[in-house]
Amino acid sequence: MALLERTGEEVSRLRLAAELGVARARMEAVFPEEGDLLDAITAEWFAPKIAMMDEVMGTDLPPRRKMYEFFARRFALLRQNFQEDPATFRLYVEMGERYFEYAQSYIDLADHYLCELIVEAQADGHLAGMDVDDARSIINQMVIGYIQPYLIAMIGERLSEGKLAAIIDAIFDGLSAKDGGARGTGKLHAA
Amino acid sequence: MALLERTGEEVSRLRLAAELGVARARMEAVFPEEGDLLDAITAEWFAPKIAMMDEVMGTDLPPRRKMYEFFARRFALLRQNFQEDPATFRLYVEMGERYFEYAQSYIDLADHYLCELIVEAQADGHLAGMDVDDARSIINQMVIGYIQPYLIAMIGERLSEGKLAAIIDAIFDGLSAKDGGARGTGKLHAA
Repeated sequence: MALLERTGEEVSRLRLAAELGVARARMEAVFPEEGDLLDAITAEWFAPKIAMMDEVMGTDLPPRRKMYEFFARRFALLRQNFQEDPATFRLYVEMGERYFEYAQSYIDLADHYLCELIVEAQADGHLAGMDVDDARSIINQMVIGYIQPYLIAMIGERLSEGKLAAIIDAIFDGLSAKDGGARGTGKLHAA
Repeated sequence: MALLERTGEEVSRLRLAAELGVARARMEAVFPEEGDLLDAITAEWFAPKIAMMDEVMGTDLPPRRKMYEFFARRFALLRQNFQEDPATFRLYVEMGERYFEYAQSYIDLADHYLCELIVEAQADGHLAGMDVDDARSIINQMVIGYIQPYLIAMIGERLSEGKLAAIIDAIFDGLSAKDGGARGTGKLHAA
């Protein structure tokens, strides 16, 4: 990853072996396939984000506070990563688009945690009547600017902890399975 | 734009002149600078989206319904554009990233309309106490998946009118200037 950050380019096993001055056979013993190197890079990149999520899930904060911290801490870290080295951050974003299957298990873990938070919120009377998976999908969409690295690079200066808190409050105070009337009925639409 | 769609590449004035069999001088009379061609392409691309926004703004729907239609109709059109020709859609997304200054006046117009919708919603008791510009920014973030072409290409299959309606209802029923407690206080945070 240091090589990748220095050169601003993706790193192959061959390039890495040359950089480290190790034999190709030794490199292949550690990373049998090119994909194993990508797996390792993905794991390193996600590790601090996973650690933050674990930490938040382990607290006994009330659900609303917990969901805010769940997104806010990751956001603060991603923003810091971007600000410290925008070019490398954008390279990781591009790699994430190209090799998104490597990130799938981490995204699944974050989704699993979010489902737990939704169940806790529902036990407190929020997100009334919602299917947990629908709620997960809708909430992810409402905060996508704060979790999607591409968007953090693109609209980062418009994102803030205060705005994220307003969105989390709107989720807890206004999101439910009840039809509030935004979509209207067939009749209204025809009129 | 037909040439751009057929070749899957950006079109310069020179390339367009060759395609149409017109003299370079004639092309330069119509598009004095390369940027004038980009301006024209941007205007064509946005025209149907602007027409939809104008149409919605001209209705006398209640604010909640109006805000839903404001985003939903554009979303349906963008999704259709993507589905009909994903490669060309992605090319426009890339061009939009490279030449985003050309799109600025259209984004400003959409923001201006959204501010009008916010004022109407506030007159009905929603978005209580919010600064109009803060509300505009937060609402744009909450529905960014439905208005950002890059996201429509990327997560389109997870977006739906039903989910958008749930988000709009959460905006009307749960978004306000009141601190609902998501962010917590300094004391709580320390504890």
